[in-house]
Amino acid sequence: MEEKQKINKISELRQDLVTGDWVVIATGRGKRPEEFADVKREEIQENTDRLCFFCYPEETGQEKDVLIYNNEQDEWSLRVFPNKYPAFSSDNKVTAWEEGPYFAMSGYGYHELVVTRDHERQIGEMEPLEVAEIMDAYQERYLDLMSKKNVNFIEIFHNHGKEAGASIAHPHSQLVAIPVISPYIRLELDGAESYYRQNKECVFCSMVSWEKENKQRVVFENDDFLVFCPFASRAAFETWVVPKKHKPYFERTSQEEKLQLAEALQKAVGKIFKGLNDPAYNFYLHTSPCDGKDYPHYHWHIEILPKTSTWAGFELSTGIEVSTIEPEEAAEFLRNV
Amino acid sequence: MEEKQKINKISELRQDLVTGDWVVIATGRGKRPEEFADVKREEIQENTDRLCFFCYPEETGQEKDVLIYNNEQDEWSLRVFPNKYPAFSSDNKVTAWEEGPYFAMSGYGYHELVVTRDHERQIGEMEPLEVAEIMDAYQERYLDLMSKKNVNFIEIFHNHGKEAGASIAHPHSQLVAIPVISPYIRLELDGAESYYRQNKECVFCSMVSWEKENKQRVVFENDDFLVFCPFASRAAFETWVVPKKHKPYFERTSQEEKLQLAEALQKAVGKIFKGLNDPAYNFYLHTSPCDGKDYPHYHWHIEILPKTSTWAGFELSTGIEVSTIEPEEAAEFLRNV
Repeated sequence: MEEKQKINKISELRQDLVTGDWVVIATGRGKRPEEFADVKREEIQENTDRLCFFCYPEETGQEKDVLIYNNEQDEWSLRVFPNKYPAFSSDNKVTAWEEGPYFAMSGYGYHELVVTRDHERQIGEMEPLEVAEIMDAYQERYLDLMSKKNVNFIEIFHNHGKEAGASIAHPHSQLVAIPVISPYIRLELDGAESYYRQNKECVFCSMVSWEKENKQRVVFENDDFLVFCPFASRAAFETWVVPKKHKPYFERTSQEEKLQLAEALQKAVGKIFKGLNDPAYNFYLHTSPCDGKDYPHYHWHIEILPKTSTWAGFELSTGIEVSTIEPEEAAEFLRNV
Repeated sequence: MEEKQKINKISELRQDLVTGDWVVIATGRGKRPEEFADVKREEIQENTDRLCFFCYPEETGQEKDVLIYNNEQDEWSLRVFPNKYPAFSSDNKVTAWEEGPYFAMSGYGYHELVVTRDHERQIGEMEPLEVAEIMDAYQERYLDLMSKKNVNFIEIFHNHGKEAGASIAHPHSQLVAIPVISPYIRLELDGAESYYRQNKECVFCSMVSWEKENKQRVVFENDDFLVFCPFASRAAFETWVVPKKHKPYFERTSQEEKLQLAEALQKAVGKIFKGLNDPAYNFYLHTSPCDGKDYPHYHWHIEILPKTSTWAGFELSTGIEVSTIEPEEAAEFLRNV
């Protein structure tokens, strides 16, 4: 145990013995048990008297940038730096160990923040070109991280609003690059593979072609992307942004497609922002793992989950999520925003 | 579509085309899209000027009791009645339909509420005998619902606190009985089956025997139950209550075991209540499906998930949950409460 503690100061990945799923035990911030009693909900850093970490990354002692874009006034417009409180760190050695019947690994990986300059303006309020810059950063960092040793999977996600778990109000996205493939991507890869075997077609392509024809769940469409509320929505106003052509790998998105992506994502988030009065939401990008294998039957996409309700005991116990509006009605509403 | 609308007024189960998972589209309360914009979080019914639904079920027009227990003063001490706003209803016919590549079913099932008399006193503050009465009700209703036509799976769960999704403050549990086996139980059944094939032992029995020997994650123990923080905890202070002997079926719990269960659950919830200053939490019971098949390698148990943080983009996108305290430290803290 002692050796484990030393090599693994930030976090560890532990495997559930029943399901094979992974959890992260991230004790990096060193919270004492007693402290959990004092915060019923995680506090958000509001822009009060303290300097905003992301407006003033140098002054507040953030990590050094790994990417920086400048605007026409030669000020920074977007920067990417390692998370000061990472869930995963490349300082951890890649090690694994057993404890009785259990299996665990060190929390090796990368955890980065993508920060846009304006403290207030969120994606729903941006111009498509500003969103395109964010997409550029996603792709540039993805390409760099996927080539790192022991990185087999990268997740890109964005939390907006306290109810969606954003602990800092200043708009930002996050990249996490780790050795293991996430349970949800594994589930989608398996599902896509088995659908292909049965139907000789990509399951996402099937969806896109049905949704385009059927129209009732479509929110927005441009040359390369379809925005729609999925048939089996897990939350009210869940919205997906999906490439219309079969595309397994996000990192291979062309410059032209990226502009279309920026427009589609901005429209989707913007309609949710305007139509639902700035709700909290999460969005994230699902793409093929970067473990050196090919995933010809997967199809990358973005899923946006507005936080319009709280998942309670039924959802947590069953994995069956409850949405309180028909996706068809949600799509019609968003279409008309 | 028209016929669908008629037969299926309360809810429907839709299958995710990629993963095969189910979601519920529950439009029973008939919320308009615009209304989602006004509530950033679901409101909780506080005991203000309105009569509490559960203190005064008759006066507030709740559904008729299906079970009632009385105390020595001949007042009701616990009652069970159908949820007035059910996610599933036996008024729905059992029907299934396709839409393009998709598959859906009507939201057939039962959704009941288990209400204890006291408006304030929660399980963490009760005497073991009061908790035993709740366990009696769980079992009695389980036995009745499992014999209903087209019921193949029953989930029992309890939400406490607004952050855990409790929409009514008065302590209550819920039973949901439906035709489909939940994705999480399916995952656990498959995991237990495959662990048994490899190890010739129940995976939960392996855990119980390791935890008893190892001791560091044990919170409480009596003759029949072990209370511990699981090795791969998904949330800070996650706590399980597991029968020490191999028991696949909750409904077969004996009167004597039920008293032990009541003590173990009360201790577990009570320590969380006291030690963490009354946090929000969910607990739920995982047991074998009631679809007429045998599940000799499953092992029923209760999982308690304190709501000490918000699942954000990373958890939602990957299915990898992040816990910010080591289960060993959490268990030591709870043990000493």
